[in-house]
Amino acid sequence: MEEKKFFEVLYNSNEAGVKARAGIIRTSSSDIETPVFMPVGTLGTVKAIEHRELHEINTEVILGNTYHLFIRPGIEVLENAGGLHKFMSWNKSILTDSGGFQIFSLAKLNKVTEAGVEFSSHLNGDKYYFTPEKVIEIQRILGSDIMMPLDECLPYPSDSGLIKESIKLTSKWEKKCFDYFKLTQDMYGHTQRLFSINQGGTSFEFRKNSIDDLTRIDFDGHAIGGLAVGEEIARMYDMVEFSTDLLPEDKPRYLMGVGTPVDLLECVEKGIDMFDCVLPTRNARHGRLFTTNGEVNLKSLKYKNNFESPDEECKTYTSMNFSLAYLRHLFISNEILGIQLATIHNLGFYMDLMTKIRIAIKRDSFKELKKSFLEKYFSNVEESTAK
Amino acid sequence: MEEKKFFEVLYNSNEAGVKARAGIIRTSSSDIETPVFMPVGTLGTVKAIEHRELHEINTEVILGNTYHLFIRPGIEVLENAGGLHKFMSWNKSILTDSGGFQIFSLAKLNKVTEAGVEFSSHLNGDKYYFTPEKVIEIQRILGSDIMMPLDECLPYPSDSGLIKESIKLTSKWEKKCFDYFKLTQDMYGHTQRLFSINQGGTSFEFRKNSIDDLTRIDFDGHAIGGLAVGEEIARMYDMVEFSTDLLPEDKPRYLMGVGTPVDLLECVEKGIDMFDCVLPTRNARHGRLFTTNGEVNLKSLKYKNNFESPDEECKTYTSMNFSLAYLRHLFISNEILGIQLATIHNLGFYMDLMTKIRIAIKRDSFKELKKSFLEKYFSNVEESTAK
Repeated sequence: MEEKKFFEVLYNSNEAGVKARAGIIRTSSSDIETPVFMPVGTLGTVKAIEHRELHEINTEVILGNTYHLFIRPGIEVLENAGGLHKFMSWNKSILTDSGGFQIFSLAKLNKVTEAGVEFSSHLNGDKYYFTPEKVIEIQRILGSDIMMPLDECLPYPSDSGLIKESIKLTSKWEKKCFDYFKLTQDMYGHTQRLFSINQGGTSFEFRKNSIDDLTRIDFDGHAIGGLAVGEEIARMYDMVEFSTDLLPEDKPRYLMGVGTPVDLLECVEKGIDMFDCVLPTRNARHGRLFTTNGEVNLKSLKYKNNFESPDEECKTYTSMNFSLAYLRHLFISNEILGIQLATIHNLGFYMDLMTKIRIAIKRDSFKELKKSFLEKYFSNVEESTAK
Repeated sequence: MEEKKFFEVLYNSNEAGVKARAGIIRTSSSDIETPVFMPVGTLGTVKAIEHRELHEINTEVILGNTYHLFIRPGIEVLENAGGLHKFMSWNKSILTDSGGFQIFSLAKLNKVTEAGVEFSSHLNGDKYYFTPEKVIEIQRILGSDIMMPLDECLPYPSDSGLIKESIKLTSKWEKKCFDYFKLTQDMYGHTQRLFSINQGGTSFEFRKNSIDDLTRIDFDGHAIGGLAVGEEIARMYDMVEFSTDLLPEDKPRYLMGVGTPVDLLECVEKGIDMFDCVLPTRNARHGRLFTTNGEVNLKSLKYKNNFESPDEECKTYTSMNFSLAYLRHLFISNEILGIQLATIHNLGFYMDLMTKIRIAIKRDSFKELKKSFLEKYFSNVEESTAK
């Protein structure tokens, strides 16, 4: 019997100008229907939501952050536990980043060479040295279903000479990651996969160079990195459009760190299969709700006596049981339950949107979905913001 | 057809020296088996736990705090919502305190007279004036199933002259509460009840005076107030023993603000039917777990690589799914999920203990339960603390 493919495109949209596709990613842990949104579980927990609640909203894959997990609880604990799945009691898929993004955005950099990067922890200043081989080794111990290679993440904007050098370094690092990946074994009896991350900022030329370099290697999927870091949103969309034309059709395409509900619709349309973003969970912690009628600031005085549901259409535990006035009260009173309920709703809203997107793609009604979604989402001009 | 009684004692223990009884309190919202532990829901939320999770552990009644709710979200909002049940979407019973305890412990006191008490909010210094009538009026608007009267709560220790005057004032206030209660109507079509609160510190004489005064009035139940405020624990137990001998058998007896699992066992034995305490929820927020084998400090280094359940015997969502090492990691990393999971376990543990207590009373095996519970609970000397 033939082994089932890791990734299959099940349906390509027939709508004009719509590059969206519906597919499936099969890991040893779960079958993931694409396009998919992956909640961010930085430290082995998607913040303020229980695992059973993630299951309830049909979460098949979450993210883990190699950099953060390496520091806390540390690799020794994770190895003793038998990997991240067992440590955190999460039986669905996990994708781990390489730590690159955090090293270059959070940690204090000491030295970057072709061999690797030396940095100091943002928590206590402890010095560490990550090499391409080391990040694979760590992710072998984490036992994530999908691993990411070490890449250099430049700040935006960066000088073009710098970008040119950087994508060369990234290509070299990722090649080393791939080679080391092929040399090493899965530790816990389940198959691990490795993606590439292309860089190049918002330069078409550099982005093409990076994609060309990396698609020559047989990675299991390809991620677009270094976007949504401050550039114009239209430019980001252009880069995505440009990149998906260059990426192979038979591999999943992952747009890292994106984005708003609008971004998801725009980028699915341009052929993206996978997303992750802290927005739904982070906004929840600040009392900002994503709803069918746009963003809602729960702390607003205008909800003080509003006993309606925050979202009549997107049915979550939160929207089906609690009023805007009650949710406002919880945030005004700094009650943790407010964060819990807002997180359940925001992630539920994202998951619900992705389900609708997958159905619409298969029915060739993606454009219709996008139009009706955006009409409602921006109907409440006062509340809605670009991001 | 005769209306079912508000309170019935269904079984009196036949064990020597055991005054425990199993009964039932019937409110318009739910049937509450006693002895019962009532989770504290200060501001219209039991901190860090969802309503469905309270249902899951068989919570039939929670507390609300009149003082806190009066300040936030305010009486106008609660009235517009149609009462506290509707505001917070809680369909089981609610008991509200009168605000007395908070006024005397949290707020800045301005003036106490026979007519009432003037105080400044602990939040913003706003001045308010509570009278016995006013606290009934507020609780009519809250629509709680069980209301408490205004009482004066003295600090411990207090001068005996002061206590003597204070219990006189408390008796007058509570008489006024009762009269006003009888003059006013339920607002939302369900029956509200009113308890008394006796005071008297740790003086047998004053406590008796207070109980004598208050049991002459036909309150629906009687609470013992002003204990567990710093006195010796043995003295507290003595006062409870003394008080339950004086309290009528056909009314529920509520020991306010108590206590540890050990306190629950001791005071059920002495004839208490109702308890409330912030310990399970507050300790959870600080990473302290109540378990079958005693208290566990989840932040302890010794759990770093302990992949066992925190409690093999008391089965909660937390103990059945997560390890000590994972819970420790969540607390060390300041992750909200740690607080959620600890809260679920601690309240689950308390509820489970109360269920076991009710069963044991009916089987005349309360002493056996207490012995075996305490043996295990104090088996891990290193971890367990008196409180």
